[in-house]
Amino acid sequence: MRIAVDAMGSDDNPAPDVAGSILAAREWGDTILLVGDRAKVEAELGKHDTTGLSLEVVHASQAVTMTDKPDVVKSKPDSSMHVGMRLVEEGQAEAFVSAGNTGGLLTIATLGPLGRIKGIKRAALTAIYPLPSGLTVSADIGANVDCKSENLVEFAQMSSLYAELALGVKEPRVALLSNGEEEGKGNQLVKETTPLMHEQHMLNYIGNLEPKEILSGKTDVIIHDGFAGNVLLKTLEATAKMVKDVLTEEIRRGLITTLGGALAYPAFKRVGALLDPSRVGGVPLLGIDGLVISAHGRSDDIAIMNAIRQARQAIQGKVVENIRARLGR
Amino acid sequence: MRIAVDAMGSDDNPAPDVAGSILAAREWGDTILLVGDRAKVEAELGKHDTTGLSLEVVHASQAVTMTDKPDVVKSKPDSSMHVGMRLVEEGQAEAFVSAGNTGGLLTIATLGPLGRIKGIKRAALTAIYPLPSGLTVSADIGANVDCKSENLVEFAQMSSLYAELALGVKEPRVALLSNGEEEGKGNQLVKETTPLMHEQHMLNYIGNLEPKEILSGKTDVIIHDGFAGNVLLKTLEATAKMVKDVLTEEIRRGLITTLGGALAYPAFKRVGALLDPSRVGGVPLLGIDGLVISAHGRSDDIAIMNAIRQARQAIQGKVVENIRARLGR
Repeated sequence: MRIAVDAMGSDDNPAPDVAGSILAAREWGDTILLVGDRAKVEAELGKHDTTGLSLEVVHASQAVTMTDKPDVVKSKPDSSMHVGMRLVEEGQAEAFVSAGNTGGLLTIATLGPLGRIKGIKRAALTAIYPLPSGLTVSADIGANVDCKSENLVEFAQMSSLYAELALGVKEPRVALLSNGEEEGKGNQLVKETTPLMHEQHMLNYIGNLEPKEILSGKTDVIIHDGFAGNVLLKTLEATAKMVKDVLTEEIRRGLITTLGGALAYPAFKRVGALLDPSRVGGVPLLGIDGLVISAHGRSDDIAIMNAIRQARQAIQGKVVENIRARLGR
Repeated sequence: MRIAVDAMGSDDNPAPDVAGSILAAREWGDTILLVGDRAKVEAELGKHDTTGLSLEVVHASQAVTMTDKPDVVKSKPDSSMHVGMRLVEEGQAEAFVSAGNTGGLLTIATLGPLGRIKGIKRAALTAIYPLPSGLTVSADIGANVDCKSENLVEFAQMSSLYAELALGVKEPRVALLSNGEEEGKGNQLVKETTPLMHEQHMLNYIGNLEPKEILSGKTDVIIHDGFAGNVLLKTLEATAKMVKDVLTEEIRRGLITTLGGALAYPAFKRVGALLDPSRVGGVPLLGIDGLVISAHGRSDDIAIMNAIRQARQAIQGKVVENIRARLGR
């Protein structure tokens, strides 16, 4: 495979971006196109042994920063994001992976070289939760804070295809996020969307779920507007961190509990790994006419490698081609 | 003080409701009016030593169950909720505490004996989060899933008064829940509400916050529509439980980690206590023309006692009188 990676993406770029690409090239034998400032990227590559690996550098004179606003799509036409997506658009790469500013990435994907698939009304930002029960796709998580029911149906269709084709879930269960499981509960948007979901015979719609049921693995795909989805995602992350932090503090408060904490450390480590977003690495921008994977700004090399793994799975599953064929026009 | 308690409220009624009332009567010397089926309540009272306590039984021939729908306001006119609120309306009790069906309680409060304070457009359901940093009032959490900006402003005003007068927070910091801190982020509702919040000179409005900042104690009051607030509340509860469950499971997986877990147990217990909703016990229905405190259905005697403590604090702070005087007409 040929995968373009934004070398100027992560908060600590280009080190984790380059190191993660090297790990991926070594693991899977792919060709990785490192997109960014040629001098910086080559200097970084020089720190590694890259013998026998297929790595190419594609120069981009600009980089999107975390403080750039959506006008970056026009103000930085030669950003590594633009260049990376152009490689996808021209067929020189099968996917573009970036740990850069998500808002910038989405704007450039939507208004830049790739654009939305014809017939798709809104591109969706996704999260993939590594829950004890497995992976759960969540859309939208912030690209579309105000939605109509037709948008939610589209997110459901695209996310279901992603779960099936990239994550290998057979007949993915799809649910709407709501404040109560019974039909009839929910806000106006959920109430309007519910009958439309029932009409989608390609979807395995299982009804409306509360956060509790989502976390206990009752669904493979959870659909919501970007505001509620963002609250779900951020509360999940913040609560897990809070519990971990308070527990660590309490354990360190006494000698015996400190000893206990040390002995139980392997268990803590496994729990940490379970909820660690770097395990998933990256998430797709669904609805874009080309595969774009967004990784966390705080990605390390392992997270970048896992984001490339996510790209590989989506390439193998022909996710974009399927969304285009089944949902586009 | 004279406080009415729903003896038929909790899932295990009347045992925890009666036992919690006895604890409260003993602790603070209040008169507790136990509202419910006289025979059942008296039988339950007979199991305790109530010498010297001021406990009265007020008969109610009906009880609201967890499966009752909102029409319970008409179909069960002699429910313990109706009777308890009538005691408040007639001045025979200063507050009514119930661990019963929250939807039923809110409906009966709004459409039954008490009703909304004149000039208040919507009554709000609240949560009070016992965070490491202290208590945070959250409204609305599900009574009003679709809101206008004027509703959010009203929730903010009422919640701020509650935090100040019942919880003793000086100039409570008030924030709107959003998907990003910067002004300009947020859905349509947040964007429309932000300028209105700036205009409220009685409010210490500190801007818009994400869940992360809320959990780290940056605000005393967090305001949202009932849908987003419900997602926040339920995700917080479910995530804390998930982390705890997975950690317990991982610790039990090996001998050494099990030993470590046993030694660190006091730390786990303190963390459990920190996030335990029974510490808060109950939350107010804000905007009702009389003090109604809603406790969790799964309340035990300690939770009921703490719900009564919450009622006492709200009585002492003259919360209802102040909302009426400052926000009513």
